[in-house]
Amino acid sequence: MSEKPRISKGTRDFLPSDVQKREYIFGTMRSVFKKYGYQAIETPSFELTSTLMGKYGDEGDRLIFRILNSGEKVKKADLSALANNELSKFANSVSEKALRYDLTVPFARFVVQHQNELSFPFKRYQIQPVWRSDRPQHGRYQEFTQCDIDVVGSDSLLYEVECIQIFDEVLSALKLPGFAIKVNNRKILTGIAETSGAEAHLITIVTAIDKLDKIGEDGVLAELDQKGVPQSAIEMLKPLLSFTGSNDEKIDLMTSFLKESLIGQKGIEELKEVFQYIELIGLRKGRLEFDITLARGLNYYTGAIFEVKADGVEMGSICGGGRYDDLTSQFGLKDVSGIGISFGADRIYDVLEELGLFPESTASNISYLLLNFGGDDLLSSLDMANEIRGKGADCELYPSQAKIQKQFKYANDRNARFVIMIGEDERNTDSITLKDMTDGTQKNIKRSVFLEGL
Amino acid sequence: MSEKPRISKGTRDFLPSDVQKREYIFGTMRSVFKKYGYQAIETPSFELTSTLMGKYGDEGDRLIFRILNSGEKVKKADLSALANNELSKFANSVSEKALRYDLTVPFARFVVQHQNELSFPFKRYQIQPVWRSDRPQHGRYQEFTQCDIDVVGSDSLLYEVECIQIFDEVLSALKLPGFAIKVNNRKILTGIAETSGAEAHLITIVTAIDKLDKIGEDGVLAELDQKGVPQSAIEMLKPLLSFTGSNDEKIDLMTSFLKESLIGQKGIEELKEVFQYIELIGLRKGRLEFDITLARGLNYYTGAIFEVKADGVEMGSICGGGRYDDLTSQFGLKDVSGIGISFGADRIYDVLEELGLFPESTASNISYLLLNFGGDDLLSSLDMANEIRGKGADCELYPSQAKIQKQFKYANDRNARFVIMIGEDERNTDSITLKDMTDGTQKNIKRSVFLEGL
Repeated sequence: MSEKPRISKGTRDFLPSDVQKREYIFGTMRSVFKKYGYQAIETPSFELTSTLMGKYGDEGDRLIFRILNSGEKVKKADLSALANNELSKFANSVSEKALRYDLTVPFARFVVQHQNELSFPFKRYQIQPVWRSDRPQHGRYQEFTQCDIDVVGSDSLLYEVECIQIFDEVLSALKLPGFAIKVNNRKILTGIAETSGAEAHLITIVTAIDKLDKIGEDGVLAELDQKGVPQSAIEMLKPLLSFTGSNDEKIDLMTSFLKESLIGQKGIEELKEVFQYIELIGLRKGRLEFDITLARGLNYYTGAIFEVKADGVEMGSICGGGRYDDLTSQFGLKDVSGIGISFGADRIYDVLEELGLFPESTASNISYLLLNFGGDDLLSSLDMANEIRGKGADCELYPSQAKIQKQFKYANDRNARFVIMIGEDERNTDSITLKDMTDGTQKNIKRSVFLEGL
Repeated sequence: MSEKPRISKGTRDFLPSDVQKREYIFGTMRSVFKKYGYQAIETPSFELTSTLMGKYGDEGDRLIFRILNSGEKVKKADLSALANNELSKFANSVSEKALRYDLTVPFARFVVQHQNELSFPFKRYQIQPVWRSDRPQHGRYQEFTQCDIDVVGSDSLLYEVECIQIFDEVLSALKLPGFAIKVNNRKILTGIAETSGAEAHLITIVTAIDKLDKIGEDGVLAELDQKGVPQSAIEMLKPLLSFTGSNDEKIDLMTSFLKESLIGQKGIEELKEVFQYIELIGLRKGRLEFDITLARGLNYYTGAIFEVKADGVEMGSICGGGRYDDLTSQFGLKDVSGIGISFGADRIYDVLEELGLFPESTASNISYLLLNFGGDDLLSSLDMANEIRGKGADCELYPSQAKIQKQFKYANDRNARFVIMIGEDERNTDSITLKDMTDGTQKNIKRSVFLEGL
């Protein structure tokens, strides 16, 4: 009995052209990461549930895919928990493992577990899938690939510089015409709350101003008021929200605004130092922008905060990241500062698609297709295919002596760059007929001459 | 509160050196697969349970990892099934998805689902992890990577030839000193049972002779007798088990043995044709061996059967495969012949490790490490690092102005090939000091000369 084939919602098959395009993105990243001395690691797809649960907040816990215990172990199902609607407790009773929700927590676990095998500062990159039981909707997948780099074991600002360089180099190598690398610092955000006398409202303030893009200045001010931020503080924050100007002008403004906040000044100092290094080195296509309103993952980051947006497309951020100080402490290793950035592969894919930036090489599928005329012609073609591959080039031999139209149709479908024909004439003259599938021209060429040219 | 970090049994972390070695294997495979016109596809990590269950036999079903339904859905737990010890039924009630058990069934599902988007014969390779809830024991993992190539939509024997070539080319590229590519044909096995008058005992016969390696000739004969194979048939089979000789001698023996079996003769004809093509093309390091006792996955294969064993190590087969005729029919697409082979990445890894065949390039981690002397020296080093990367080479800048011993220790730990030092003298003379970490020698060299040489 047969069943209609389909896949689980929120997952994707990748056809050859999809894989080629994705591999173009991953390969570009990998080569840049390696140039900066990052090394690949891989962690298992599933971890002990206890490693993951409680690390991503309630919402995150809910989205973690859990693996059902095998065989007899399901007999331990806690039926009273189920009856009492304690679904999480019930899940714990039938599941000990869970699929990776992101790469960061497994990385923290990895660093602590292998700390004696690693040299610090430890620079790693990791390109692996993660899984979230998000409701499948446009652009949200239950399985997607994260591309992260992190350095742990150093608080040197040179790594902030390096992260910015890597954003710039990866996205420039992918031929993005332009993009903004937005930078802020958590210490500046803390300083703002401190200075405006609303330190207790830090999270409210940051959450609100993070929405400036979406709800506008009036929206932010309304939210601050509604959430109980004192009017005096709102009055002080107003000029920050509406301020536009160069990075230097913003730095001047904030230096003055934060003059009474030690932590705020520290944030400004860090930011200035990073900007100065970048000034010295220069960027390719990226524009460095100090964005006072940038606040990604406030509870996580402790220093620099990054976000990248591509020009010319209506899309959220394509990269993000920042410095953190407490990642490994949840696994027992304290006082290890780190910094990490993440590339949104699916969004970058969409940008390249929308702007037509995938190179032609991701479309062309095979260099040479050899037709099959059977008998001695086939033997000669088989031999030629072997020689072509011996030269390191790729080719395919049509598998049967089908009609020539059918063989050419296959050559077209496979996007063959050239078709090679070897019949009796060619065998007698030690030559091949080479047809250029781009313009339809064909020529006879000596085997030896052809092979030398590969 | 911290927890001691550990991973789930049967899974592995891959450290940078592990990933490099594995990537050396996968990269070699990929480049050979591409040379033969195979295209990469990827399928989701989890499939609908119905896609996987019942495809691998009872044992397989038991080893499939199932994903617990999220949120409220677990309320549908079939408690009476649990009470009645119908564990599989209970599992079905709380789980709709399951982790991929192999790449073959998802590939069959993929081919049927996307048949109108593919050109046939469709040649694909796939290198992705699979999961099995095997009891973790030496060499058995719950997560491991399969490396498969398959062609579907053609019964041409040229693909048997191609599979043999690919075994040969991949393993030769990995520098294996020697290996046997064993070939048999399911039709020959059927012919043997037919000829010996024990057609009804086909599976018993094949299962027994497949164990010849392990239990010896006497063991096989005893098993045949014990399982009820008629003595007359056993007498006929005896000479086949003990026969040693060249491929041609074996072919002669079987041609004569199978002269009354049409299907057996067909098998011999197929085998001979494949051997003739390979004779014409030649192999690199592989030895083609006709092995009458080879019977992998009898119920699955319908034509050629392959297995590869490496010389110089005590290890099971490192590759396998064969032709099948019925893979896609379970998803509603009939009469599609295919052939596929699989590389055992973990075993190949072990062979390379045991024979010391990993190239040095998989160990060296960074080409240049620039020391950090702070101030203007740092600026000059930062600039140099940027120039080195601009030339496409990889380098790292030490992140802080630590003691020089500490910086050199890091260079050693990171397996740096060269250390670059830029102090005041170097800045004044537009030069760098380059230390070769292999032999400890160092020299002063002009920046421009150094950069030109990259």
